[in-house]
Amino acid sequence: MTLETVSEVRSHGGVQGVYAHDSAATGTRMVFSVFVPDHAAGAALPVVWYLSGLTCTHANVTDKGEYRAACAELGLIFVAPDTSPRGEGVADAEGYDLGQGAGFYVDATQAPWTPHFRMRRYVEDELPALVAEHFPADRGAQAIMGHSMGGHGALTVGLRKPDRFRSVSAFAPIVAPGQVPWGQKALSAYLGNDVAAWRAHDAVALIEDGARVPALLVDQGAADPFLAEQLRPELLSAACAQAGIDLMLRMQPGYDHSYYFISTFMADHLRWHAARLQ
Amino acid sequence: MTLETVSEVRSHGGVQGVYAHDSAATGTRMVFSVFVPDHAAGAALPVVWYLSGLTCTHANVTDKGEYRAACAELGLIFVAPDTSPRGEGVADAEGYDLGQGAGFYVDATQAPWTPHFRMRRYVEDELPALVAEHFPADRGAQAIMGHSMGGHGALTVGLRKPDRFRSVSAFAPIVAPGQVPWGQKALSAYLGNDVAAWRAHDAVALIEDGARVPALLVDQGAADPFLAEQLRPELLSAACAQAGIDLMLRMQPGYDHSYYFISTFMADHLRWHAARLQ
Repeated sequence: MTLETVSEVRSHGGVQGVYAHDSAATGTRMVFSVFVPDHAAGAALPVVWYLSGLTCTHANVTDKGEYRAACAELGLIFVAPDTSPRGEGVADAEGYDLGQGAGFYVDATQAPWTPHFRMRRYVEDELPALVAEHFPADRGAQAIMGHSMGGHGALTVGLRKPDRFRSVSAFAPIVAPGQVPWGQKALSAYLGNDVAAWRAHDAVALIEDGARVPALLVDQGAADPFLAEQLRPELLSAACAQAGIDLMLRMQPGYDHSYYFISTFMADHLRWHAARLQ
Repeated sequence: MTLETVSEVRSHGGVQGVYAHDSAATGTRMVFSVFVPDHAAGAALPVVWYLSGLTCTHANVTDKGEYRAACAELGLIFVAPDTSPRGEGVADAEGYDLGQGAGFYVDATQAPWTPHFRMRRYVEDELPALVAEHFPADRGAQAIMGHSMGGHGALTVGLRKPDRFRSVSAFAPIVAPGQVPWGQKALSAYLGNDVAAWRAHDAVALIEDGARVPALLVDQGAADPFLAEQLRPELLSAACAQAGIDLMLRMQPGYDHSYYFISTFMADHLRWHAARLQ
């Protein structure tokens, strides 16, 4: 698969790149970022996938995530995909929480979304193959994390792919999209009104239906304005307790939903993943 | 003096604020950011001033500077002013290197700049008084740093105020504006064609004229596209050697002029300042 280098810049003892490609999954040009720490020739490095939240592209975490110092220290590749297909001819909606910038990491089955909104196969299949082909990635040592809608993505992809991801973490994730307004709006638009089809895209439902991961780390700002209505981490706590999943849920007093929160705990998450990737 | 809180967000064990005020120096509304780490009630913390480069506002370093973790660890307040007056009625020019976003930290004496472009008195007098009034700042323990045009600002303010700033550092500074195109364009526009008036705004000239600081730290990317024509750190090296100033100039292979470079060495600079502020 052909990869276009948009930019490569030296940072924190590694290379921060931005790349583009014509995606078969979405039928659009997709842009993503990859940080590769300096490494020995021929080495294969563990990979951390970071899925972003509503309204974001790869650029938000790349600019504001403060992950490079820890990734360089720990020897981790950091991959940040976009959150949806984009461009002319791609469906969109008025709100920030549906359409471009709001792909929810699902493969849409409903018009007008179905021709391009195939973010599940994009982040689960196409982009991993592309990254494996072009970067010094150890496919046997991968972790996944994300924020808000991307926390939903990280939890659901991780729960569906326990053999691929040794560790899963999230900042302020949407843990039960089927039970909250953001998720109900998006899943009904993309997947239709048969709620049974939503369960493969709902972390709490996946756990209820038997999916497991060895361990989960979640940080949640206690001053997050979306906490009570959209995020509801207590639903994840209950599902994990019932299923015997080792969830470390940390409520962080005073923190909100922004990159000021994410960047504060980013290095912690990367260290937690690195310990599980060795 | 009245201070308007634009935003205050918890981050890295402290509060990242953005504030605005009506500036007497510039006659405009000025915006700046301040990070204050958690501290004991009544404590006064050392202050690091960060002056930004061409095209920047307070927001660039606030978003991308990666200073909060180190400031929280070291107990440092971090202040980031804007780079010029802005708004309707404020003079501007076509290029990115003159006018709004390019104040060069001087008090203009020439039309059309003179009514508002008074960034020297703003960063040297007005904003320090405002910060001292509203934040738990130890006025006896201050450092100053900056990037590019802001590196020029940090060096020149530091050289003119050795009793105020215990340490001075810069990323890719314009060390001799009187000898390079960016500086010649700006200083002739703001100060006129009498080059003698430029010397108080030129780090190399200030050192030649007898100004001293105890120690200087400068990081410069070796792959910086502005290195040979605009930055010319060898002129600072020569002036410091002649004057007996202890300059640590570190050429960083592969690094460019961006925040990818700045953020890489930010924590290093803050540690260097903190050691001199204790």
